[in-house]
Amino acid sequence: MSDDLVRPEIREIREYVPGKNPAKPGMVKLASNENPFGPSPKAIEAITRESLSLQTYPDQRASLLRDALSKKFGLPSDCFICGNGADDILQIVAATYLSPGEESVISRNSFSLYELVTRVFGGKPVFAELRDNAVDLDAVSSAVTDRTKLIFLTNPNNPTGTIFSSGQLEIFMKRVPDRALVVMDEAYMEFAENGDFPDCLKYVRDGANLMVVRTFSKVYGLAGLRAGYGIARKEIVSPMFLSKMPFNVSRLAQAGAAAALGDREFVERTLRNNSEGKRTLYAEFDQLGLSYKRTESNFIFVDLGRPADEVFLRMMAEGVIIRPLSSFGFPQAIRVSIGSPDQNRKLCEALKKVLA
Amino acid sequence: MSDDLVRPEIREIREYVPGKNPAKPGMVKLASNENPFGPSPKAIEAITRESLSLQTYPDQRASLLRDALSKKFGLPSDCFICGNGADDILQIVAATYLSPGEESVISRNSFSLYELVTRVFGGKPVFAELRDNAVDLDAVSSAVTDRTKLIFLTNPNNPTGTIFSSGQLEIFMKRVPDRALVVMDEAYMEFAENGDFPDCLKYVRDGANLMVVRTFSKVYGLAGLRAGYGIARKEIVSPMFLSKMPFNVSRLAQAGAAAALGDREFVERTLRNNSEGKRTLYAEFDQLGLSYKRTESNFIFVDLGRPADEVFLRMMAEGVIIRPLSSFGFPQAIRVSIGSPDQNRKLCEALKKVLA
Repeated sequence: MSDDLVRPEIREIREYVPGKNPAKPGMVKLASNENPFGPSPKAIEAITRESLSLQTYPDQRASLLRDALSKKFGLPSDCFICGNGADDILQIVAATYLSPGEESVISRNSFSLYELVTRVFGGKPVFAELRDNAVDLDAVSSAVTDRTKLIFLTNPNNPTGTIFSSGQLEIFMKRVPDRALVVMDEAYMEFAENGDFPDCLKYVRDGANLMVVRTFSKVYGLAGLRAGYGIARKEIVSPMFLSKMPFNVSRLAQAGAAAALGDREFVERTLRNNSEGKRTLYAEFDQLGLSYKRTESNFIFVDLGRPADEVFLRMMAEGVIIRPLSSFGFPQAIRVSIGSPDQNRKLCEALKKVLA
Repeated sequence: MSDDLVRPEIREIREYVPGKNPAKPGMVKLASNENPFGPSPKAIEAITRESLSLQTYPDQRASLLRDALSKKFGLPSDCFICGNGADDILQIVAATYLSPGEESVISRNSFSLYELVTRVFGGKPVFAELRDNAVDLDAVSSAVTDRTKLIFLTNPNNPTGTIFSSGQLEIFMKRVPDRALVVMDEAYMEFAENGDFPDCLKYVRDGANLMVVRTFSKVYGLAGLRAGYGIARKEIVSPMFLSKMPFNVSRLAQAGAAAALGDREFVERTLRNNSEGKRTLYAEFDQLGLSYKRTESNFIFVDLGRPADEVFLRMMAEGVIIRPLSSFGFPQAIRVSIGSPDQNRKLCEALKKVLA
């Protein structure tokens, strides 16, 4: 088999660039927006229990987890589908709805998975430019053609931390054609504090062509477990069960995620820390004269105005791992996760030294 | 969005029919070829440890697990790719190599995932008939056309438990055209006792267009964890890292599978039990006058000569869950997993009663 037997679409893909991991103990990782308090303790308990039954296959429909989600969000369980992380939901959406040659509209400089799943299914990514480093819903609307099948939106946006408001979304949704599906990635929605953050479940209830995608990786501290979910009206969700791999969500992910959903104390602690940490970092960044975006998420986008890869390496040498954003198309910017008070302090000390 | 916006290929898919699960405690499940001794204890230990780090993302390349596989099988770690179960490997192979309109050759009456991944990527499944309820490599060869990209083989075969020999495979491989990739599903290979069972790693070493697919679900008792792997020469494996989801294998699967790989005692106990159980069941089935296939796997295919769905329901009422094979295209046959001595005894008692 010569290499040209690989599908041409696959050769267009650049491999995902993850946050770096600590090379030695004691390093502070603020590169992947992971939870500074570890995993939800209730999830750990459930996983430990469930590990004794691992010889048996997982429930193909993740019924208990979907029932728990249904209860929490007040929508029928038929409106939910669970995945091996939110990534899997994105893949299943594309598998089910995106035919070869159809277009996905994607905001420029966003999470690269939207482009990945589009290319894997032979679709054509069409990019809409950001405006002032935030998603520009007008630009997204303008990029829609009669070949558009999927429209990927991220709110709060990764990596800039900005949001679009419920009013802006309302106007946008009126312009979405009937033959397109809006895929609303809300991986960070739990962290949004702005009162104008849209309630997308309203659109699901109203029968819109919109699927909300969420994850247990962030606020529940379960990035390593791989559990995410999609919410849409049941006519949209139901065919997705045909194209997904039957046992896509492990027993541990189903049990751990369901338990985490009820871990209110952990979630509250996480959100309180994030809110306080955000304000601390704003004050420190102001003192350092840094240009940053106010965030509705658990990370802050900082425009350094100089090559970020070099700053990343020097921060690494100081024991702090941040995310240089070249792979997102911002060669002069970094993304720093909001950590624990101690991690935030170390971040600021290292930044002071490196940027001096 | 009207339903006709679902891709036409997806509407062709019938949802996977899994083995039924016990409705009440005390039932014996011999329907999904799960390990009767539970999960590998070393895997449970590793999972319990790893669960404390679940806030962090998994290694995108599953390096430690691939290193462990490399050591065990004496091939470079570049020859290995890990997946969210072997299903995920099948999906990634199709994503990387199968272009819309290209053909997959699949043995009739086999594991339905080959057809599923083929349809999901817009390929065309072409079926080769079995011969005497075993894979017929001549029929498979004859089904190959100049549009064939993937050839799915299962050895030992599911659900009939038969194998093709190394000699038969040798002849077959000479007839595979250069532009096709053989996907050799060896989910049950550890159970094969026949000395003629082929060593497929030989083909990987010799640079053939062949990918071996294996799983931790069966002999390691980890079906609920979702861990599988593919082995091929690195030119075949390497582009698969582009099309897979970055974090497809959870931290728990990576840690648990690596630990299980070293759990020799558990594997030996599992294989010894299977070998003894097989002989016990042969003797009992002979006494009952049942027509069955001698197996190289951890299950036995039994041709009842009458509607199996009804027998399945009556066995269920007796507290024993078996697998009726209608969804595999054998409406008069069942597949029973080889269980523990106690489970096997209950199976035979129930069969005696139901078939009397």
